[in-house]
Amino acid sequence: MKDLINIAVDAMGGENSPYKVIKGIKIHNNISNNIFYNIFGNKKLIEPIINKLNISNSCYKIIHTDNAIKDTDSPLAAAKKGKDTSMWLSIESLKNKESDAIVSAGNTGALFVIAKLNLKMIEQIDKPALSALWPNKNGMNVVLDLGANVECSEKNLVDFSLMGSALHKSLFENEDPKVALLNIGSEELKGNNTIKNTFQILNEKKNSLFEFKGYIEGNQIMKGDVNVIVTDGFTGNVALKTAEGTANFITSELKLALNSTLLGKLSSLLNLKNLKNFKNKLDPRLYNGAILLGLDKPVIKSHGSTDEIGFANSLKVCEKIIKSNLIDKIKKNIN
Amino acid sequence: MKDLINIAVDAMGGENSPYKVIKGIKIHNNISNNIFYNIFGNKKLIEPIINKLNISNSCYKIIHTDNAIKDTDSPLAAAKKGKDTSMWLSIESLKNKESDAIVSAGNTGALFVIAKLNLKMIEQIDKPALSALWPNKNGMNVVLDLGANVECSEKNLVDFSLMGSALHKSLFENEDPKVALLNIGSEELKGNNTIKNTFQILNEKKNSLFEFKGYIEGNQIMKGDVNVIVTDGFTGNVALKTAEGTANFITSELKLALNSTLLGKLSSLLNLKNLKNFKNKLDPRLYNGAILLGLDKPVIKSHGSTDEIGFANSLKVCEKIIKSNLIDKIKKNIN
Repeated sequence: MKDLINIAVDAMGGENSPYKVIKGIKIHNNISNNIFYNIFGNKKLIEPIINKLNISNSCYKIIHTDNAIKDTDSPLAAAKKGKDTSMWLSIESLKNKESDAIVSAGNTGALFVIAKLNLKMIEQIDKPALSALWPNKNGMNVVLDLGANVECSEKNLVDFSLMGSALHKSLFENEDPKVALLNIGSEELKGNNTIKNTFQILNEKKNSLFEFKGYIEGNQIMKGDVNVIVTDGFTGNVALKTAEGTANFITSELKLALNSTLLGKLSSLLNLKNLKNFKNKLDPRLYNGAILLGLDKPVIKSHGSTDEIGFANSLKVCEKIIKSNLIDKIKKNIN
Repeated sequence: MKDLINIAVDAMGGENSPYKVIKGIKIHNNISNNIFYNIFGNKKLIEPIINKLNISNSCYKIIHTDNAIKDTDSPLAAAKKGKDTSMWLSIESLKNKESDAIVSAGNTGALFVIAKLNLKMIEQIDKPALSALWPNKNGMNVVLDLGANVECSEKNLVDFSLMGSALHKSLFENEDPKVALLNIGSEELKGNNTIKNTFQILNEKKNSLFEFKGYIEGNQIMKGDVNVIVTDGFTGNVALKTAEGTANFITSELKLALNSTLLGKLSSLLNLKNLKNFKNKLDPRLYNGAILLGLDKPVIKSHGSTDEIGFANSLKVCEKIIKSNLIDKIKKNIN
């Protein structure tokens, strides 16, 4: 029986929910085995979708609640609203050992606070960090923190290195984690004191978990020389969103340029398959699923504005994390 | 006589200098009037290029020196090496009122330190900031600070708003400066204390110089709703370089995709003009020329790795700044 993985799914968070959540479950269920979904949310909204999509009732249970956290709720207001919302109940089911991990596309701040209220921290970790996947030329980076902590100490950044390496190893078992600190120059003298001290600590730390590659600058994130990028939550959040904005800007300029003449439109049609491959490779839905690291259970945040394909991918990330024993790996890295 | 603008040019900095510098002067000279170039550097290297390019000797003077700052020199080592290098002498010519502004493609840290040693700060400004142009959907942003100051106070960020607005008005006189603070959320509660305090100050400051639009996140930088983006030097540097890296990643992926099949190659040929327009619009050489704001003379930094076209564009930025009386505008904004 313990081969079965129980995923708690908050069905009510993010745009176009619960539809995209249930459709995401359907997509994930088609490609996975031994997954049981504990679906938290409004039964009256969820059941018709499940019936329409014809999801086998042997692989899910609906835990009904009328209440949900809104995207506009402040984290504190959300926590107070709390105990009978789909987000709270789904996290609580981890505490009660009814689920192994949770996925939500809801309010990030609320998820963060409610998870911290309900779950234990991993011993010796002071602050949880939000981490996500970010493509590079050779594969995939894990980048953290992406906004959970506006300010971070040396200890926090060292912890992020350990947790990020464990996550990378969990997701890409054939690759060796290579850690870098995000900075504004590659020389040892650059940056603020926290970063310089972290450099010293990581440089002297002998370990077999990851290779420490020193500093990288923003333009090297996607080069593929490293695959675990550590930074404070303020810088990480700005970097990730700036990359997102730049990608959107460029692809919309490209669209404009390619469609600006009839000849352009025709030749783009000829090139459709290649352009589609290009688009697919950069599709943010493929990288959907940020992981809150540092708690003793896996908490996965899907992008609020993603669709069913994106949500299915965050379920895939969730499955991989449980199967590869991420939390145990982190604990081992810490000790 | 005072209609003539004197630009001090450090001919020895950056890749492929002095060739690209002199060729840049040639390009700029062809489209400008009343500019006189004080060229600092090695006469033996500079003269043959000038002769080959046939630049009229009525528009330049070479001030010979054997010595130059290297890209690998630390700022302090550069300052010590100092007084007979092309960078030092060209900045000194501003102090001596022989030049109105300086352009260099050399070592950024050295330029920063040598400029601070030789030039006065504008009254009431505590720290100079490095600012640059960054395209958005509707035109061009001024973004600062991009790395001169790792840590910034509220006072610094408010000063950056005033200086950045003056710069935007100087370069784009028909547009009204709209200032935003780069943050990790758009709600008032987000961010660190310095940012929150700066928000309060700017929100209460009544002024006719710029409109304060509150916070923006990284993915809104290129949206075009604002045009002066204020941040500390650490965050600004990471954001700018991350955008650069993302743009490089996407365009190289696009190239790969378009050339992956024969049909693709052929249709790309058909689409050559459109793809070229696209490339031109994103050409970083068009935005070349970062401005060190806060000193009482204009100091312009060209990208070290740019070519003659990029260097010519930084001369254009320089000319525009002098003609629009940027420094006076900043002083007026401060008072």
